Amino acid sequence: MAVLVVGSIALDSLETPFGKRDDVPGGSATFFSTAASFFAPVQLVGVVGEDFPQEHVDFLKSRGVDLAGLTRAPGKTFRWKGRYGFDLNEAHTLDTQLNVFGEFRPELPASFRNPDLLFLGNIHPELQGLVLDQVEKRPRLVAMDTMNFWIAGSREALLKTLARVDMLFVNDAEARQLAGEHNVIKAARAIQAMGPARVVIKRGEYGVMLFDGEHVFAAPAWPLEEVFDPTGAGDSFAGGFMGYVSQRGDLSLRTLRQACVAGTAIASFCVEKFSLDRFRELDQQQIAARLAAFKALTHFDEIA
Amino acid sequence: MAVLVVGSIALDSLETPFGKRDDVPGGSATFFSTAASFFAPVQLVGVVGEDFPQEHVDFLKSRGVDLAGLTRAPGKTFRWKGRYGFDLNEAHTLDTQLNVFGEFRPELPASFRNPDLLFLGNIHPELQGLVLDQVEKRPRLVAMDTMNFWIAGSREALLKTLARVDMLFVNDAEARQLAGEHNVIKAARAIQAMGPARVVIKRGEYGVMLFDGEHVFAAPAWPLEEVFDPTGAGDSFAGGFMGYVSQRGDLSLRTLRQACVAGTAIASFCVEKFSLDRFRELDQQQIAARLAAFKALTHFDEIA
Repeated sequence: MAVLVVGSIALDSLETPFGKRDDVPGGSATFFSTAASFFAPVQLVGVVGEDFPQEHVDFLKSRGVDLAGLTRAPGKTFRWKGRYGFDLNEAHTLDTQLNVFGEFRPELPASFRNPDLLFLGNIHPELQGLVLDQVEKRPRLVAMDTMNFWIAGSREALLKTLARVDMLFVNDAEARQLAGEHNVIKAARAIQAMGPARVVIKRGEYGVMLFDGEHVFAAPAWPLEEVFDPTGAGDSFAGGFMGYVSQRGDLSLRTLRQACVAGTAIASFCVEKFSLDRFRELDQQQIAARLAAFKALTHFDEIA
Repeated sequence: MAVLVVGSIALDSLETPFGKRDDVPGGSATFFSTAASFFAPVQLVGVVGEDFPQEHVDFLKSRGVDLAGLTRAPGKTFRWKGRYGFDLNEAHTLDTQLNVFGEFRPELPASFRNPDLLFLGNIHPELQGLVLDQVEKRPRLVAMDTMNFWIAGSREALLKTLARVDMLFVNDAEARQLAGEHNVIKAARAIQAMGPARVVIKRGEYGVMLFDGEHVFAAPAWPLEEVFDPTGAGDSFAGGFMGYVSQRGDLSLRTLRQACVAGTAIASFCVEKFSLDRFRELDQQQIAARLAAFKALTHFDEIA
């Protein structure tokens, strides 16, 4: 099954306690597609400006990402500038320049209109809806991400899109905000009632929780002594998750639980270096080793 | 194996978003011993004042707790008054009256001097040391708890006691404070280097992490839609943990991992009602059901 992702492609400038990088590749579609590519074929829809270095395009190509939906528009690439303190769970945005991303109207090429799995990255909920309008037959799974900005400022549009999707990836603070409910379990239940039967709550260094109907699955984050750059962790998680589901080819609870672990493993690699750097040197053997270690981290023998 | 606990016994007055209670039983030794009693025989050392209702003593007795080390001293019982907002992870102390607890010098009756497992509840680290001085042969496991107050104000005494124990139970903020290190994994490693080969980091609604030598085990909290009163959750976790270890009779990694789950289950019951109320009606069948459900919450099939 192919995974289609629509989202942002950015040049990020970052400061973390471990260092500084300027104009490194970022954006939800970039992290998602790279992460998913370790498990499945990926199709990407997004826009970059004239200044976007060809080497980053070539990297995505080298990961097998189908770039038929990548547009290069006149102007500059979307830029995000952020800083992380020692509490790496929270990014402090220093500057955002939408540039060509401000005019982004996602258009699916003909070859992209029958995705099996669709991921609507964090863009305006109306644009997410526009993507849904363009798919010819209902994908087996439509998932979306969103953020505080849309929850606060475009709630109505967001609720409309939410009602059309099967799954929401959202962080805990945003889930609370969206549901107007402090308890995260209740918040997830409230979001399910808004449309998506499945909700994944991302809790940064504390891991993730998957709600699927009545079922709940919880996975801790992989314990890392050094998180170099948390940028893209959430999108890498979603990419690993959707990529794994695509590889397995079914939507059983068994697969979705494993997908949480696959996503967690991929996200844990992402944050070990700046930007996409860890993904550049990641191989299947390293992924398999971390998946095995994750079982050792979380499993226990039955208590009689 | 018997578990000996030394700690506070209190009358708590609480406000949570769900209600208010005055003068309900609290304190580290109270929660610990009740929680541990579901798995193993418990011996308790502590002090109450003349005003401590006999019914609470009778309840501990009914749980099979050996109260040979319980002293009733002239004066009033230790009182703690606290409030929780919607973020139930953090207690706001409104008032503390040490009363008879301010003069507490733990003395182990002769029948308590050979415990297999010893838990030093959150009291002054010098008093914790005093307890250790009184045991006749080294227990198989000595664990302790502590808090920000001692970490900041009695660091030297704390480090001395820490060097004498096998295991520390501590919450994540306190672990960071003690180690002077933001990353919780690094903080745990730093604490291990101070003495205890085993460290359990308690992360409230996010669960726990066990560090044992090089090994790490992580368990999420049980997902609760309503946490009525988080008071005592940490001590109940420790009680369930130590009680389970006592029941199994060994200190293998297998047992310690299971003990994290047993502690998590017991703590999840604790917070469902005020004070000890949920423990009053808890039975082995309910515990077994939650332990089984906890496996369903966390386990996943091997990823090929």
